[in-house]
Amino acid sequence: MQNRNALKCTSIISTCDQEKTYGTLPVIKCQAAVAWEPNVPMVIEEIEVAPPQKNEIRIKVIATGVCHSDLYHLFEGKHKDGFPAVLGHEGAGVVESVGPGVTEFKPGDKVIPLFVSQCKECRFCKSPKTNLCEKSWSTERYAQMSNTDTRFSCRGKPVLQFMGTSTFSEYTVLNQIAVAKIHDDAPLNRVCLLGCGISTGYGAAINTAKVEPGSVCAVFGMGAVGLAAVMGCKNAGASRIIAVDINEQKFEKAKVFGATDFVNPKAHKKPINEVLTDMTNGGVDYSLECVGNVAVMRSALESCVKGWGVSVLVGWTDLHDFSARPIQLIAGKTWKGSLFGGFKGKDSIPKLVLDYMAGRIKLEEFVTHTVSLEQINDAIQLMKTGGCIRTIVNVSK
Amino acid sequence: MQNRNALKCTSIISTCDQEKTYGTLPVIKCQAAVAWEPNVPMVIEEIEVAPPQKNEIRIKVIATGVCHSDLYHLFEGKHKDGFPAVLGHEGAGVVESVGPGVTEFKPGDKVIPLFVSQCKECRFCKSPKTNLCEKSWSTERYAQMSNTDTRFSCRGKPVLQFMGTSTFSEYTVLNQIAVAKIHDDAPLNRVCLLGCGISTGYGAAINTAKVEPGSVCAVFGMGAVGLAAVMGCKNAGASRIIAVDINEQKFEKAKVFGATDFVNPKAHKKPINEVLTDMTNGGVDYSLECVGNVAVMRSALESCVKGWGVSVLVGWTDLHDFSARPIQLIAGKTWKGSLFGGFKGKDSIPKLVLDYMAGRIKLEEFVTHTVSLEQINDAIQLMKTGGCIRTIVNVSK
Repeated sequence: MQNRNALKCTSIISTCDQEKTYGTLPVIKCQAAVAWEPNVPMVIEEIEVAPPQKNEIRIKVIATGVCHSDLYHLFEGKHKDGFPAVLGHEGAGVVESVGPGVTEFKPGDKVIPLFVSQCKECRFCKSPKTNLCEKSWSTERYAQMSNTDTRFSCRGKPVLQFMGTSTFSEYTVLNQIAVAKIHDDAPLNRVCLLGCGISTGYGAAINTAKVEPGSVCAVFGMGAVGLAAVMGCKNAGASRIIAVDINEQKFEKAKVFGATDFVNPKAHKKPINEVLTDMTNGGVDYSLECVGNVAVMRSALESCVKGWGVSVLVGWTDLHDFSARPIQLIAGKTWKGSLFGGFKGKDSIPKLVLDYMAGRIKLEEFVTHTVSLEQINDAIQLMKTGGCIRTIVNVSK
Repeated sequence: MQNRNALKCTSIISTCDQEKTYGTLPVIKCQAAVAWEPNVPMVIEEIEVAPPQKNEIRIKVIATGVCHSDLYHLFEGKHKDGFPAVLGHEGAGVVESVGPGVTEFKPGDKVIPLFVSQCKECRFCKSPKTNLCEKSWSTERYAQMSNTDTRFSCRGKPVLQFMGTSTFSEYTVLNQIAVAKIHDDAPLNRVCLLGCGISTGYGAAINTAKVEPGSVCAVFGMGAVGLAAVMGCKNAGASRIIAVDINEQKFEKAKVFGATDFVNPKAHKKPINEVLTDMTNGGVDYSLECVGNVAVMRSALESCVKGWGVSVLVGWTDLHDFSARPIQLIAGKTWKGSLFGGFKGKDSIPKLVLDYMAGRIKLEEFVTHTVSLEQINDAIQLMKTGGCIRTIVNVSK
């Protein structure tokens, strides 16, 4: 009886052919945090998760982080047509079942869902210069923020998959191009953080800025992404890493990740770019903006040394323009940015997991809180108030 | 008698010690175009040019181009304290005399004055990443637009040296770090163009954008700098070079330099970035803004392909901010800029002269008009109205 109901719900998926594509695989009923509309807390609901179709994988989500992009979508975004949706894009789990055509994964494999896919066939995947797979949510489906071709439904209505990943659900379904297979011994409640924030900040330093040994860096914003950027600068051999934040309580943590200097812009009368320029004989070699604030983006560029300074946009916002005077670039500075730290997910995330397991990168140190899926709104609140670095949500038992 | 008067005028140079530093070298009286105040035509005056001091070279200017930066200073700038001055920074000449400590130059050497010096000692000169010598006018003295420590005077008043070079004068004086020695057979009324515009555009393509073989480029603005950028893209092996200008008469010339496609933004209803994106399957690999307009800078960035597109600011303005949405950079594009095409002048300009003499770069094709120094205001007018590509001013007989 449960099965029949569930199958009925999957009929929202227009392209599916139940008989042919997934044979006997059942629809799964499970718990998920559903965001029904903007600016309202999510609701823990029983949802139906259709079986994986061709080239798709159904994943039991074990743990997920809560990232600012979730918050952005829920509380600050303009995407009013992106609801109802299941948010979450920083998760890790175990393959529950696979659809036809999937050969790379089998049930039981540990995996990390990728909001930037890697099809390995498009011109972007074939270029060593970028990770922006043409088939990715983040490129193809950016405008709608959520996959409309969803495997989720709740109370008879389709529920969208935010960023394609939807890790605030006990089960989720992704195309195999958007899943990285990781080491069997990886602790999922830690490596889930590699699904977004930590990779984003770390990669911005090593892949996008390409921080060089001996260089001087400034990282703006000591949230998880900023701390990961500090870690990237440190691992790249920077000789000096200046942590910038208006919340001085974050500096202790910044030190753990390798920051050598600490500046609170509010403690100075001069603009922060002048403070940093004075501290560094003309400006830093690399600056990374990990806040998502266009005024900070400008300060970060202006804090760079002329001639070769590189400033990287890491924090996410699309509500305003960023800007500066042309002389900033004419004077030889470079303004860059990246998504997901420039990492090609299927290739790189398994290696980052090994880096963590070998002690080459930290993850444990980002985790300040752990909650259950039922407490998801508390986790969102913690992020909103800056009270956490990263909160781990234990999604499934 | 003439000598005594002249020596009297040099007393404005507070640091000089006539007996010790330049012995018997006379002050030279010569013709120069003096810009007495903003927004008023220049006046041909007799000025006094003091002898070169320690490490300085006095140059007989043979020919000079007229560049938009001259116009900018005279008619559009905010530098009201930069007057009176002798403008001009795209010249070539012959060494007349040298001051104490100069070993690299001797009277009779053909030279090009550099508004970006190369001292070879500062950390910028020692870095392969930049040409922005710390001792350059353009870096140290940017705020004042003109050298206050000038060798010029007129009617008993000091006259500033715009950009340190002041090539709208029959004679000028520069420190040896700001002079490039060129081949004895170089035609000065052509290679003078390497003193600014042509090197700026050409270098922006090959040094700053680092255009790769087979790539697709767009160049905005088909003035001399833009045409030189087209030439740079062509010499770097670009497979397609799209010339963008609202004046379609410039396209014929653009073709001469290697442009393959021609777009007039005013001939399209869609924004130019959409036109270029449609033409190029998602955007160009490299775009170069050679107008000096912040709206065009934005279009140039937006015309780039995501993932690896590089947009370079080449045109000069500092009256407004340039801006874009953060997603432009987050999507993997890079925004750069350069001054003087990123060329280290003393090292590179002599090689560019040889490139011209060997037919590897064009210069003749930029020249549309030739005038005498007395006609300098006509040349300015031609540039203001877009009636020329480059006007050569024969400064000395």
